[in-house]
Amino acid sequence: MENVGVLSFSLTGYEFSAVYNLLSLGIASMLFTSLFLFVARDRVLPKYRMAVMVSATVTSIAAYHYFRMFESFSHGYGINEYSTANKLALEAGQPAMSMLEFGAANYNVGYRYIDWFLTVPLLLVELVAVLGLAKAIQSSLLKRLVPAAALMIALGYPGDAKISILGIEGTGFASEAAIWGLLSTIPFLYILYVLWFEMKKSLDSQSEKVRGLFQTLRVLLIATWGVYPITFILAMNGPEVATAQDVVNREIGYTIADILAKCLFGLIIFSIARIKSAEESKEHAAAEGH
Amino acid sequence: MENVGVLSFSLTGYEFSAVYNLLSLGIASMLFTSLFLFVARDRVLPKYRMAVMVSATVTSIAAYHYFRMFESFSHGYGINEYSTANKLALEAGQPAMSMLEFGAANYNVGYRYIDWFLTVPLLLVELVAVLGLAKAIQSSLLKRLVPAAALMIALGYPGDAKISILGIEGTGFASEAAIWGLLSTIPFLYILYVLWFEMKKSLDSQSEKVRGLFQTLRVLLIATWGVYPITFILAMNGPEVATAQDVVNREIGYTIADILAKCLFGLIIFSIARIKSAEESKEHAAAEGH
Repeated sequence: MENVGVLSFSLTGYEFSAVYNLLSLGIASMLFTSLFLFVARDRVLPKYRMAVMVSATVTSIAAYHYFRMFESFSHGYGINEYSTANKLALEAGQPAMSMLEFGAANYNVGYRYIDWFLTVPLLLVELVAVLGLAKAIQSSLLKRLVPAAALMIALGYPGDAKISILGIEGTGFASEAAIWGLLSTIPFLYILYVLWFEMKKSLDSQSEKVRGLFQTLRVLLIATWGVYPITFILAMNGPEVATAQDVVNREIGYTIADILAKCLFGLIIFSIARIKSAEESKEHAAAEGH
Repeated sequence: MENVGVLSFSLTGYEFSAVYNLLSLGIASMLFTSLFLFVARDRVLPKYRMAVMVSATVTSIAAYHYFRMFESFSHGYGINEYSTANKLALEAGQPAMSMLEFGAANYNVGYRYIDWFLTVPLLLVELVAVLGLAKAIQSSLLKRLVPAAALMIALGYPGDAKISILGIEGTGFASEAAIWGLLSTIPFLYILYVLWFEMKKSLDSQSEKVRGLFQTLRVLLIATWGVYPITFILAMNGPEVATAQDVVNREIGYTIADILAKCLFGLIIFSIARIKSAEESKEHAAAEGH
Protein backbone atom coordinates (compact mmCIF):
# COMPACT_ATOMS: atom_id res chain seq x y z
CA MET A 1 0.00 0.00 0.00
CA GLU A 2 2.99 2.39 0.01
CA ASN A 3 2.89 5.18 -2.58
CA VAL A 4 -0.81 4.60 -2.90
CA GLY A 5 -3.30 7.32 -2.14
CA VAL A 6 -6.87 6.54 -1.18
CA LEU A 7 -9.40 8.66 -2.98
CA SER A 8 -11.17 11.09 -0.72
CA PHE A 9 -13.31 13.89 -2.00
CA SER A 10 -16.73 15.46 -1.75
CA LEU A 11 -20.00 14.83 -3.55
CA THR A 12 -22.62 17.56 -3.90
CA GLY A 13 -26.16 16.80 -2.75
CA TYR A 14 -27.18 16.37 -6.39
CA GLU A 15 -24.38 13.94 -7.18
CA PHE A 16 -25.15 11.95 -4.06
CA SER A 17 -28.89 11.84 -4.85
CA ALA A 18 -28.31 10.83 -8.45
CA VAL A 19 -26.28 7.73 -7.53
CA TYR A 20 -28.46 6.96 -4.48
CA ASN A 21 -31.65 7.02 -6.53
CA LEU A 22 -30.16 5.06 -9.42
CA LEU A 23 -28.96 2.30 -7.07
CA SER A 24 -32.50 2.17 -5.66
CA LEU A 25 -33.86 1.97 -9.22
CA GLY A 26 -31.41 -0.92 -9.69
CA ILE A 27 -32.85 -2.75 -6.66
CA ALA A 28 -36.45 -2.23 -7.80
CA SER A 29 -35.75 -3.26 -11.41
CA MET A 30 -33.81 -6.41 -10.50
CA LEU A 31 -36.12 -7.50 -7.67
CA PHE A 32 -39.39 -7.20 -9.55
CA THR A 33 -38.09 -8.56 -12.83
CA SER A 34 -37.07 -11.64 -10.80
CA LEU A 35 -40.46 -11.90 -9.13
CA PHE A 36 -42.27 -11.53 -12.44
CA LEU A 37 -40.09 -14.08 -14.26
CA PHE A 38 -40.28 -16.67 -11.47
CA VAL A 39 -44.09 -16.42 -11.47
CA ALA A 40 -44.36 -16.16 -15.27
CA ARG A 41 -42.33 -19.30 -16.03
CA ASP A 42 -45.64 -21.24 -16.28
CA ARG A 43 -46.57 -19.15 -19.30
CA VAL A 44 -44.06 -21.04 -21.51
CA LEU A 45 -43.67 -24.73 -22.41
CA PRO A 46 -41.66 -26.82 -19.88
CA LYS A 47 -38.65 -27.06 -22.21
CA TYR A 48 -38.20 -23.27 -22.12
CA ARG A 49 -38.71 -22.84 -18.37
CA MET A 50 -35.03 -23.39 -17.58
CA ALA A 51 -34.06 -20.33 -19.65
CA VAL A 52 -36.69 -18.20 -17.86
CA MET A 53 -35.63 -19.49 -14.43
CA VAL A 54 -31.96 -18.76 -15.14
CA SER A 55 -32.98 -15.22 -16.20
CA ALA A 56 -34.86 -14.81 -12.90
CA THR A 57 -31.83 -16.14 -10.99
CA VAL A 58 -29.55 -13.58 -12.67
CA THR A 59 -31.78 -10.65 -11.70
CA SER A 60 -32.16 -12.08 -8.18
CA ILE A 61 -28.39 -12.25 -7.70
CA ALA A 62 -28.14 -8.69 -8.98
CA ALA A 63 -30.96 -7.54 -6.65
CA TYR A 64 -28.92 -8.83 -3.70
CA HIS A 65 -25.82 -6.97 -4.84
CA TYR A 66 -27.74 -3.76 -5.51
CA PHE A 67 -29.09 -3.91 -1.93
CA ARG A 68 -25.51 -4.24 -0.70
CA MET A 69 -24.21 -1.45 -2.96
CA PHE A 70 -27.05 0.85 -1.87
CA GLU A 71 -26.15 0.29 1.78
CA SER A 72 -22.42 0.59 1.10
CA PHE A 73 -22.89 3.83 -0.83
CA SER A 74 -25.24 5.37 1.76
CA HIS A 75 -22.75 4.71 4.54
CA GLY A 76 -19.51 5.13 2.60
CA TYR A 77 -20.60 8.53 1.41
CA GLY A 78 -21.73 9.55 4.84
CA ILE A 79 -25.44 10.25 4.62
CA ASN A 80 -25.39 10.70 8.40
CA GLU A 81 -22.56 13.15 8.30
CA TYR A 82 -24.48 14.91 5.61
CA SER A 83 -27.48 15.50 7.86
CA THR A 84 -25.25 16.76 10.63
CA ALA A 85 -23.20 18.90 8.28
CA ASN A 86 -26.41 20.32 6.91
CA LYS A 87 -27.68 21.21 10.35
CA LEU A 88 -24.41 22.82 11.41
CA ALA A 89 -24.26 24.84 8.21
CA LEU A 90 -27.81 26.09 8.69
CA GLU A 91 -27.07 27.04 12.27
CA ALA A 92 -24.02 28.98 11.12
CA GLY A 93 -26.18 30.75 8.53
CA GLN A 94 -24.27 29.15 5.66
CA PRO A 95 -25.88 27.60 2.57
CA ALA A 96 -26.56 23.98 3.36
CA MET A 97 -26.76 20.88 1.14
CA SER A 98 -23.37 21.67 -0.27
CA MET A 99 -20.98 18.78 -0.07
CA LEU A 100 -20.71 15.27 1.28
CA GLU A 101 -17.46 14.06 2.60
CA PHE A 102 -16.51 10.96 0.71
CA GLY A 103 -14.05 8.21 1.36
CA ALA A 104 -13.95 6.05 -1.74
CA ALA A 105 -12.32 3.28 0.24
CA ASN A 106 -15.56 2.91 2.20
CA TYR A 107 -17.60 2.16 -0.90
CA ASN A 108 -17.06 -1.46 -1.80
CA VAL A 109 -16.45 -1.79 -5.53
CA GLY A 110 -16.06 -5.57 -5.10
CA TYR A 111 -19.83 -6.15 -5.11
CA ARG A 112 -20.08 -5.30 -8.80
CA TYR A 113 -17.37 -7.77 -9.76
CA ILE A 114 -18.73 -10.57 -7.58
CA ASP A 115 -22.11 -9.92 -9.17
CA TRP A 116 -20.73 -10.00 -12.71
CA PHE A 117 -18.61 -13.07 -12.00
CA LEU A 118 -21.84 -14.95 -11.17
CA THR A 119 -24.30 -13.32 -13.56
CA VAL A 120 -22.39 -12.79 -16.80
CA PRO A 121 -21.78 -16.53 -17.44
CA LEU A 122 -25.45 -17.16 -16.56
CA LEU A 123 -26.60 -14.55 -19.10
CA LEU A 124 -24.92 -16.65 -21.78
CA VAL A 125 -26.63 -19.77 -20.39
CA GLU A 126 -30.04 -18.03 -20.79
CA LEU A 127 -29.16 -16.96 -24.30
CA VAL A 128 -28.26 -20.48 -25.45
CA ALA A 129 -30.92 -22.33 -23.42
CA VAL A 130 -33.83 -20.38 -24.89
CA LEU A 131 -33.05 -21.56 -28.41
CA GLY A 132 -33.93 -25.17 -27.53
CA LEU A 133 -30.96 -26.57 -29.49
CA ALA A 134 -29.93 -30.22 -29.55
CA LYS A 135 -28.29 -31.08 -26.19
CA ALA A 136 -24.87 -31.86 -27.77
CA ILE A 137 -24.69 -28.48 -29.53
CA GLN A 138 -25.93 -26.62 -26.44
CA SER A 139 -23.40 -28.34 -24.25
CA SER A 140 -20.54 -27.63 -26.65
CA LEU A 141 -21.46 -23.91 -26.83
CA LEU A 142 -21.78 -23.53 -23.06
CA LYS A 143 -18.50 -25.33 -22.36
CA ARG A 144 -16.75 -22.55 -24.25
CA LEU A 145 -18.91 -19.52 -23.45
CA VAL A 146 -19.22 -19.95 -19.67
CA PRO A 147 -15.46 -20.23 -18.86
CA ALA A 148 -14.70 -17.37 -21.28
CA ALA A 149 -17.21 -15.12 -19.49
CA ALA A 150 -15.83 -15.98 -16.04
CA LEU A 151 -12.29 -15.34 -17.28
CA MET A 152 -13.30 -11.99 -18.79
CA ILE A 153 -14.63 -10.75 -15.42
CA ALA A 154 -11.76 -12.21 -13.39
CA LEU A 155 -9.18 -10.47 -15.61
CA GLY A 156 -11.10 -7.17 -15.58
CA TYR A 157 -11.19 -6.85 -11.81
CA PRO A 158 -7.53 -6.18 -10.97
CA GLY A 159 -7.40 -3.27 -13.42
CA ASP A 160 -10.64 -1.68 -12.31
CA ALA A 161 -9.79 -2.10 -8.65
CA LYS A 162 -6.51 -0.23 -9.19
CA ILE A 163 -8.32 2.66 -10.82
CA SER A 164 -11.41 2.90 -8.70
CA ILE A 165 -10.16 2.04 -5.25
CA LEU A 166 -6.71 3.49 -5.31
CA GLY A 167 -6.72 6.07 -8.05
CA ILE A 168 -3.81 6.26 -10.44
CA GLU A 169 -0.60 7.63 -9.05
CA GLY A 170 2.18 7.84 -11.56
CA THR A 171 2.23 6.00 -14.84
CA GLY A 172 2.94 2.58 -13.35
CA PHE A 173 -0.66 2.02 -12.31
CA ALA A 174 -2.16 3.22 -15.56
CA SER A 175 -0.10 0.83 -17.62
CA GLU A 176 -0.73 -2.06 -15.23
CA ALA A 177 -4.49 -1.39 -15.40
CA ALA A 178 -4.25 -1.23 -19.20
CA ILE A 179 -2.64 -4.68 -19.30
CA TRP A 180 -5.45 -6.23 -17.27
CA GLY A 181 -8.01 -4.42 -19.43
CA LEU A 182 -6.38 -5.77 -22.57
CA LEU A 183 -6.21 -9.33 -21.22
CA SER A 184 -9.91 -9.15 -20.33
CA THR A 185 -10.74 -8.13 -23.89
CA ILE A 186 -9.45 -11.44 -25.33
CA PRO A 187 -12.22 -13.67 -23.85
CA PHE A 188 -14.76 -10.91 -24.69
CA LEU A 189 -13.79 -11.07 -28.37
CA TYR A 190 -13.90 -14.87 -28.26
CA ILE A 191 -17.48 -14.72 -26.89
CA LEU A 192 -18.49 -12.37 -29.71
CA TYR A 193 -16.88 -14.74 -32.23
CA VAL A 194 -18.88 -17.72 -30.88
CA LEU A 195 -22.15 -15.76 -30.77
CA TRP A 196 -21.82 -14.36 -34.29
CA PHE A 197 -20.01 -17.04 -36.24
CA GLU A 198 -20.30 -20.42 -34.50
CA MET A 199 -24.00 -19.92 -33.72
CA LYS A 200 -24.87 -18.96 -37.30
CA LYS A 201 -25.95 -22.49 -38.21
CA SER A 202 -28.01 -22.94 -35.04
CA LEU A 203 -29.93 -19.76 -35.85
CA ASP A 204 -30.84 -20.81 -39.39
CA SER A 205 -33.26 -23.37 -37.96
CA GLN A 206 -35.14 -20.69 -35.96
CA SER A 207 -38.18 -18.75 -37.17
CA GLU A 208 -37.79 -15.20 -38.46
CA LYS A 209 -39.35 -13.69 -35.31
CA VAL A 210 -36.93 -15.57 -33.06
CA ARG A 211 -33.94 -14.64 -35.24
CA GLY A 212 -34.98 -10.98 -35.01
CA LEU A 213 -35.16 -11.06 -31.20
CA PHE A 214 -31.89 -13.00 -30.96
CA GLN A 215 -30.24 -10.31 -33.05
CA THR A 216 -31.62 -7.68 -30.62
CA LEU A 217 -30.11 -9.66 -27.72
CA ARG A 218 -26.68 -9.81 -29.36
CA VAL A 219 -26.73 -6.05 -30.03
CA LEU A 220 -27.94 -5.38 -26.47
CA LEU A 221 -25.09 -7.55 -25.20
CA ILE A 222 -22.41 -5.62 -27.13
CA ALA A 223 -23.95 -2.24 -26.27
CA THR A 224 -24.25 -2.92 -22.53
CA TRP A 225 -21.08 -4.95 -21.99
CA GLY A 226 -19.28 -2.30 -24.03
CA VAL A 227 -20.06 0.27 -21.31
CA TYR A 228 -17.60 -1.44 -18.96
CA PRO A 229 -14.45 -1.19 -21.12
CA ILE A 230 -15.45 2.32 -22.20
CA THR A 231 -15.76 3.46 -18.57
CA PHE A 232 -12.47 1.71 -17.92
CA ILE A 233 -10.66 3.52 -20.74
CA LEU A 234 -12.20 6.88 -19.81
CA ALA A 235 -11.01 6.45 -16.24
CA MET A 236 -7.49 5.66 -17.47
CA ASN A 237 -7.28 8.64 -19.79
CA GLY A 238 -8.63 11.07 -17.24
CA PRO A 239 -6.64 13.08 -14.72
CA GLU A 240 -4.23 11.11 -12.58
CA VAL A 241 -6.56 11.09 -9.59
CA ALA A 242 -10.22 10.34 -10.11
CA THR A 243 -12.67 13.14 -9.30
CA ALA A 244 -16.12 12.96 -7.74
CA GLN A 245 -17.59 13.41 -11.21
CA ASP A 246 -15.72 10.29 -12.42
CA VAL A 247 -17.14 8.21 -9.60
CA VAL A 248 -20.67 9.50 -10.21
CA ASN A 249 -20.47 8.91 -13.97
CA ARG A 250 -19.11 5.40 -13.49
CA GLU A 251 -21.84 4.40 -11.04
CA ILE A 252 -24.57 5.84 -13.29
CA GLY A 253 -23.13 4.17 -16.40
CA TYR A 254 -22.71 0.76 -14.73
CA THR A 255 -26.19 0.84 -13.20
CA ILE A 256 -28.03 1.72 -16.41
CA ALA A 257 -25.98 -0.86 -18.35
CA ASP A 258 -26.75 -3.50 -15.70
CA ILE A 259 -30.51 -2.86 -15.80
CA LEU A 260 -30.55 -3.17 -19.60
CA ALA A 261 -28.18 -6.17 -19.67
CA LYS A 262 -30.13 -8.14 -17.06
CA CYS A 263 -33.76 -6.97 -16.82
CA LEU A 264 -34.41 -6.03 -20.44
CA PHE A 265 -32.29 -8.99 -21.59
CA GLY A 266 -34.25 -11.39 -19.35
CA LEU A 267 -37.60 -10.04 -20.54
CA ILE A 268 -36.57 -10.51 -24.19
CA ILE A 269 -35.50 -14.10 -23.33
CA PHE A 270 -39.02 -14.56 -21.89
CA SER A 271 -40.53 -13.18 -25.14
CA ILE A 272 -38.50 -15.63 -27.22
CA ALA A 273 -39.62 -18.48 -24.95
CA ARG A 274 -43.26 -17.37 -25.40
CA ILE A 275 -42.94 -17.19 -29.19
CA LYS A 276 -41.22 -20.57 -29.46
CA SER A 277 -43.80 -22.16 -27.13
CA ALA A 278 -46.63 -20.85 -29.31
CA GLU A 279 -44.86 -21.98 -32.49
CA GLU A 280 -44.37 -25.52 -31.20
CA SER A 281 -47.72 -26.20 -29.57
CA LYS A 282 -51.07 -25.17 -31.01
CA GLU A 283 -52.72 -25.96 -27.69
CA HIS A 284 -50.36 -23.69 -25.81
CA ALA A 285 -50.84 -20.93 -28.38
CA ALA A 286 -54.64 -21.16 -28.11
CA ALA A 287 -54.64 -21.26 -24.29
CA GLU A 288 -52.33 -18.25 -24.07
CA GLY A 289 -54.37 -16.26 -26.60
CA HIS A 290 -51.73 -16.01 -29.35
CA MET B 1 -25.68 25.68 -5.94
CA GLU B 2 -25.55 29.41 -5.17
CA ASN B 3 -28.87 31.25 -4.86
CA VAL B 4 -30.57 28.05 -3.83
CA GLY B 5 -32.19 27.74 -0.44
CA VAL B 6 -32.99 24.43 1.13
CA LEU B 7 -36.48 24.15 2.56
CA SER B 8 -36.37 23.89 6.27
CA PHE B 9 -39.38 24.21 8.47
CA SER B 10 -41.35 22.47 11.16
CA LEU B 11 -44.16 19.93 11.12
CA THR B 12 -46.59 19.68 13.98
CA GLY B 13 -47.04 16.30 15.62
CA TYR B 14 -50.38 15.95 13.84
CA GLU B 15 -48.96 16.78 10.42
CA PHE B 16 -46.13 14.34 10.96
CA SER B 17 -48.53 11.59 12.07
CA ALA B 18 -50.87 12.16 9.13
CA VAL B 19 -48.14 11.58 6.52
CA TYR B 20 -46.46 8.84 8.57
CA ASN B 21 -49.72 6.85 8.85
CA LEU B 22 -50.71 7.37 5.23
CA LEU B 23 -47.33 6.12 4.02
CA SER B 24 -47.87 3.04 6.19
CA LEU B 25 -51.34 2.62 4.65
CA GLY B 26 -49.55 2.82 1.28
CA ILE B 27 -47.21 -0.06 2.24
CA ALA B 28 -50.09 -2.23 3.49
CA SER B 29 -52.29 -1.58 0.44
CA MET B 30 -49.56 -2.22 -2.12
CA LEU B 31 -48.05 -5.26 -0.39
CA PHE B 32 -51.26 -7.18 0.16
CA THR B 33 -52.84 -6.30 -3.19
CA SER B 34 -49.67 -7.83 -4.70
CA LEU B 35 -49.93 -10.93 -2.57
CA PHE B 36 -53.62 -11.40 -3.39
CA LEU B 37 -53.16 -10.89 -7.14
CA PHE B 38 -50.16 -13.22 -7.41
CA VAL B 39 -52.07 -15.99 -5.64
CA ALA B 40 -55.36 -15.24 -7.40
CA ARG B 41 -53.94 -15.40 -10.92
CA ASP B 42 -55.06 -19.06 -11.18
CA ARG B 43 -58.69 -17.93 -10.91
CA VAL B 44 -58.65 -16.63 -14.51
CA LEU B 45 -57.95 -18.37 -17.84
CA PRO B 46 -54.24 -18.64 -18.79
CA LYS B 47 -54.56 -15.97 -21.49
CA TYR B 48 -55.55 -13.34 -18.89
CA ARG B 49 -52.92 -14.27 -16.30
CA MET B 50 -50.27 -12.00 -17.80
CA ALA B 51 -52.47 -8.94 -17.13
CA VAL B 52 -53.03 -10.03 -13.50
CA MET B 53 -49.31 -10.74 -13.01
CA VAL B 54 -48.33 -7.33 -14.38
CA SER B 55 -50.85 -5.73 -11.97
CA ALA B 56 -49.24 -7.62 -9.08
CA THR B 57 -45.78 -6.53 -10.25
CA VAL B 58 -46.88 -2.89 -10.28
CA THR B 59 -48.14 -3.00 -6.69
CA SER B 60 -44.98 -4.91 -5.64
CA ILE B 61 -42.72 -2.21 -7.08
CA ALA B 62 -44.83 0.42 -5.30
CA ALA B 63 -44.68 -1.54 -2.03
CA TYR B 64 -40.86 -1.38 -2.19
CA HIS B 65 -40.93 2.37 -2.76
CA TYR B 66 -43.47 3.01 0.01
CA PHE B 67 -41.16 1.15 2.41
CA ARG B 68 -38.30 3.41 1.31
CA MET B 69 -40.43 6.58 1.53
CA PHE B 70 -41.67 5.63 4.99
CA GLU B 71 -38.08 5.18 6.18
CA SER B 72 -36.92 8.34 4.44
CA PHE B 73 -39.78 10.39 5.91
CA SER B 74 -39.28 9.00 9.42
CA HIS B 75 -35.60 9.94 9.36
CA GLY B 76 -35.73 13.04 7.17
CA TYR B 77 -38.37 14.57 9.35
CA GLY B 78 -36.46 13.64 12.44
CA ILE B 79 -38.63 11.34 14.47
CA ASN B 80 -35.65 10.83 16.76
CA GLU B 81 -34.94 14.50 17.08
CA TYR B 82 -38.61 14.87 17.71
CA SER B 83 -38.44 12.55 20.66
CA THR B 84 -35.44 14.43 22.01
CA ALA B 85 -37.10 17.78 21.44
CA ASN B 86 -40.16 16.45 23.13
CA LYS B 87 -38.15 15.32 26.14
CA LEU B 88 -36.29 18.60 26.40
CA ALA B 89 -39.53 20.53 26.16
CA LEU B 90 -41.11 18.46 28.87
CA GLU B 91 -38.04 18.93 31.08
CA ALA B 92 -38.27 22.67 30.53
CA GLY B 93 -41.95 22.57 31.46
CA GLN B 94 -43.02 23.56 27.94
CA PRO B 95 -45.89 21.96 26.00
CA ALA B 96 -44.53 18.86 24.32
CA MET B 97 -45.28 17.28 20.93
CA SER B 98 -45.22 20.68 19.35
CA MET B 99 -43.02 20.80 16.30
CA LEU B 100 -40.67 18.63 14.29
CA GLU B 101 -37.63 20.10 12.76
CA PHE B 102 -37.67 19.34 9.09
CA GLY B 103 -34.98 19.35 6.46
CA ALA B 104 -36.71 18.74 3.12
CA ALA B 105 -33.38 17.77 1.59
CA ASN B 106 -33.37 14.67 3.78
CA TYR B 107 -36.68 13.40 2.47
CA ASN B 108 -35.94 11.78 -0.84
CA VAL B 109 -38.55 12.88 -3.39
CA GLY B 110 -36.79 10.74 -6.03
CA TYR B 111 -38.49 7.53 -4.87
CA ARG B 112 -41.89 8.65 -6.16
CA TYR B 113 -40.53 9.42 -9.61
CA ILE B 114 -38.53 6.21 -9.90
CA ASP B 115 -41.66 4.35 -8.85
CA TRP B 116 -43.81 6.12 -11.45
CA PHE B 117 -41.15 5.68 -14.13
CA LEU B 118 -41.44 1.89 -13.69
CA THR B 119 -45.12 1.51 -12.79
CA VAL B 120 -46.98 4.00 -15.01
CA PRO B 121 -45.93 2.31 -18.28
CA LEU B 122 -46.83 -1.08 -16.70
CA LEU B 123 -50.32 0.19 -15.75
CA LEU B 124 -50.93 0.75 -19.47
CA VAL B 125 -49.61 -2.76 -20.21
CA GLU B 126 -52.19 -4.23 -17.76
CA LEU B 127 -54.94 -2.15 -19.29
CA VAL B 128 -54.23 -3.35 -22.84
CA ALA B 129 -53.29 -6.96 -21.94
CA VAL B 130 -56.57 -7.69 -20.14
CA LEU B 131 -58.61 -7.07 -23.30
CA GLY B 132 -57.09 -10.13 -25.01
CA LEU B 133 -56.75 -8.30 -28.35
CA ALA B 134 -55.04 -9.74 -31.42
CA LYS B 135 -51.23 -9.72 -30.88
CA ALA B 136 -50.59 -7.24 -33.72
CA ILE B 137 -53.07 -4.67 -32.35
CA GLN B 138 -51.82 -5.13 -28.78
CA SER B 139 -48.21 -4.72 -29.85
CA SER B 140 -49.01 -1.59 -31.88
CA LEU B 141 -50.85 0.02 -28.92
CA LEU B 142 -48.09 -0.79 -26.41
CA LYS B 143 -45.33 0.47 -28.70
CA ARG B 144 -46.94 3.90 -28.48
CA LEU B 145 -48.37 3.94 -24.95
CA VAL B 146 -45.32 2.64 -23.03
CA PRO B 147 -42.74 5.15 -24.38
CA ALA B 148 -45.26 8.02 -24.00
CA ALA B 149 -45.81 7.09 -20.33
CA ALA B 150 -42.06 6.87 -19.62
CA LEU B 151 -41.52 10.24 -21.34
CA MET B 152 -44.35 11.85 -19.35
CA ILE B 153 -42.71 10.87 -16.03
CA ALA B 154 -39.17 11.71 -17.16
CA LEU B 155 -40.25 15.22 -18.22
CA GLY B 156 -42.25 15.80 -15.04
CA TYR B 157 -39.35 15.10 -12.69
CA PRO B 158 -37.07 18.12 -13.31
CA GLY B 159 -39.97 20.50 -12.62
CA ASP B 160 -41.17 18.78 -9.49
CA ALA B 161 -37.62 18.42 -8.17
CA LYS B 162 -37.11 22.16 -8.51
CA ILE B 163 -40.26 22.87 -6.53
CA SER B 164 -40.10 20.20 -3.90
CA ILE B 165 -36.40 19.89 -3.20
CA LEU B 166 -35.31 23.47 -3.54
CA GLY B 167 -38.43 25.54 -3.16
CA ILE B 168 -39.04 28.38 -5.53
CA GLU B 169 -36.79 31.36 -5.19
CA GLY B 170 -37.51 34.12 -7.60
CA THR B 171 -39.52 33.73 -10.79
CA GLY B 172 -36.81 31.84 -12.67
CA PHE B 173 -37.57 28.56 -10.94
CA ALA B 174 -41.35 28.84 -11.27
CA SER B 175 -41.21 29.43 -15.01
CA GLU B 176 -38.65 26.68 -15.53
CA ALA B 177 -40.83 24.26 -13.58
CA ALA B 178 -43.83 25.37 -15.65
CA ILE B 179 -41.99 24.53 -18.88
CA TRP B 180 -41.22 20.99 -17.69
CA GLY B 181 -44.82 20.62 -16.49
CA LEU B 182 -46.11 21.72 -19.89
CA LEU B 183 -43.76 19.40 -21.80
CA SER B 184 -44.89 16.50 -19.61
CA THR B 185 -48.53 17.24 -20.51
CA ILE B 186 -47.93 16.50 -24.21
CA PRO B 187 -47.36 12.72 -23.81
CA PHE B 188 -50.20 12.66 -21.23
CA LEU B 189 -52.66 14.07 -23.79
CA TYR B 190 -51.34 11.63 -26.40
CA ILE B 191 -52.04 8.71 -24.02
CA LEU B 192 -55.59 9.95 -23.47
CA TYR B 193 -56.05 10.26 -27.23
CA VAL B 194 -54.93 6.65 -27.80
CA LEU B 195 -57.10 5.31 -24.96
CA TRP B 196 -60.25 7.17 -26.02
CA PHE B 197 -60.04 7.32 -29.82
CA GLU B 198 -57.66 4.67 -31.14
CA MET B 199 -59.01 1.99 -28.81
CA LYS B 200 -62.64 2.67 -29.74
CA LYS B 201 -62.71 -0.11 -32.32
CA SER B 202 -61.03 -2.64 -30.02
CA LEU B 203 -63.69 -1.99 -27.39
CA ASP B 204 -66.62 -2.59 -29.74
CA SER B 205 -65.78 -6.30 -29.78
CA GLN B 206 -66.00 -6.53 -25.96
CA SER B 207 -69.12 -7.39 -23.95
CA GLU B 208 -71.15 -4.64 -22.30
CA LYS B 209 -69.91 -5.58 -18.82
CA VAL B 210 -66.28 -5.37 -19.91
CA ARG B 211 -66.87 -2.05 -21.70
CA GLY B 212 -68.42 -0.65 -18.51
CA LEU B 213 -65.42 -1.64 -16.36
CA PHE B 214 -62.97 -0.40 -19.00
CA GLN B 215 -64.74 2.97 -18.91
CA THR B 216 -64.33 2.99 -15.09
CA LEU B 217 -60.61 2.30 -15.53
CA ARG B 218 -60.18 5.18 -17.97
CA VAL B 219 -61.99 7.60 -15.63
CA LEU B 220 -59.95 6.32 -12.67
CA LEU B 221 -56.81 6.88 -14.71
CA ILE B 222 -57.68 10.53 -15.52
CA ALA B 223 -58.86 11.22 -11.96
CA THR B 224 -55.80 9.78 -10.25
CA TRP B 225 -53.11 10.84 -12.75
CA GLY B 226 -54.74 14.29 -12.71
CA VAL B 227 -53.81 14.68 -9.02
CA TYR B 228 -50.14 15.00 -9.98
CA PRO B 229 -50.38 18.02 -12.32
CA ILE B 230 -52.91 19.67 -9.98
CA THR B 231 -50.53 19.33 -7.02
CA PHE B 232 -47.78 20.62 -9.29
CA ILE B 233 -49.77 23.71 -10.31
CA LEU B 234 -50.87 24.43 -6.74
CA ALA B 235 -47.27 24.27 -5.57
CA MET B 236 -46.25 26.73 -8.30
CA ASN B 237 -49.00 29.23 -7.56
CA GLY B 238 -48.39 29.13 -3.83
CA PRO B 239 -46.04 31.35 -1.86
CA GLU B 240 -42.48 31.53 -3.09
CA VAL B 241 -41.22 29.10 -0.48
CA ALA B 242 -43.22 25.95 0.21
CA THR B 243 -44.73 25.65 3.68
CA ALA B 244 -45.09 22.60 5.89
CA GLN B 245 -48.77 22.49 4.91
CA ASP B 246 -47.80 22.24 1.22
CA VAL B 247 -45.52 19.29 1.88
CA VAL B 248 -48.16 17.51 3.96
CA ASN B 249 -50.91 18.11 1.37
CA ARG B 250 -48.70 16.88 -1.43
CA GLU B 251 -47.72 13.67 0.34
CA ILE B 252 -51.34 12.94 1.28
CA GLY B 253 -52.60 13.67 -2.26
CA TYR B 254 -49.92 11.55 -3.94
CA THR B 255 -50.42 8.61 -1.58
CA ILE B 256 -54.22 8.44 -1.94
CA ALA B 257 -53.92 8.84 -5.72
CA ASP B 258 -51.29 6.08 -5.83
CA ILE B 259 -53.42 3.62 -3.86
CA LEU B 260 -56.40 4.20 -6.17
CA ALA B 261 -54.31 4.20 -9.36
CA LYS B 262 -52.51 0.95 -8.51
CA CYS B 263 -54.49 -1.18 -6.03
CA LEU B 264 -58.05 -0.31 -7.07
CA PHE B 265 -56.96 -0.24 -10.74
CA GLY B 266 -55.31 -3.68 -10.41
CA LEU B 267 -58.35 -5.17 -8.72
CA ILE B 268 -60.65 -3.89 -11.50
CA ILE B 269 -58.24 -5.43 -14.03
CA PHE B 270 -58.65 -8.72 -12.13
CA SER B 271 -62.47 -8.35 -12.29
CA ILE B 272 -62.33 -7.85 -16.05
CA ALA B 273 -60.10 -10.92 -16.39
CA ARG B 274 -62.65 -12.93 -14.32
CA ILE B 275 -65.60 -11.76 -16.42
CA LYS B 276 -63.83 -12.45 -19.73
CA SER B 277 -62.71 -15.90 -18.51
CA ALA B 278 -66.30 -16.80 -17.59
CA GLU B 279 -67.60 -15.45 -20.92
CA GLU B 280 -65.15 -17.52 -22.93
CA SER B 281 -65.25 -20.86 -21.13
CA LYS B 282 -68.39 -22.50 -19.76
CA GLU B 283 -66.25 -24.95 -17.82
CA HIS B 284 -64.32 -22.16 -16.17
CA ALA B 285 -67.55 -20.29 -15.38
CA ALA B 286 -69.10 -23.38 -13.80
CA ALA B 287 -65.97 -24.25 -11.81
CA GLU B 288 -65.67 -20.69 -10.51
CA GLY B 289 -69.37 -20.49 -9.64
CA HIS B 290 -70.38 -17.74 -12.07
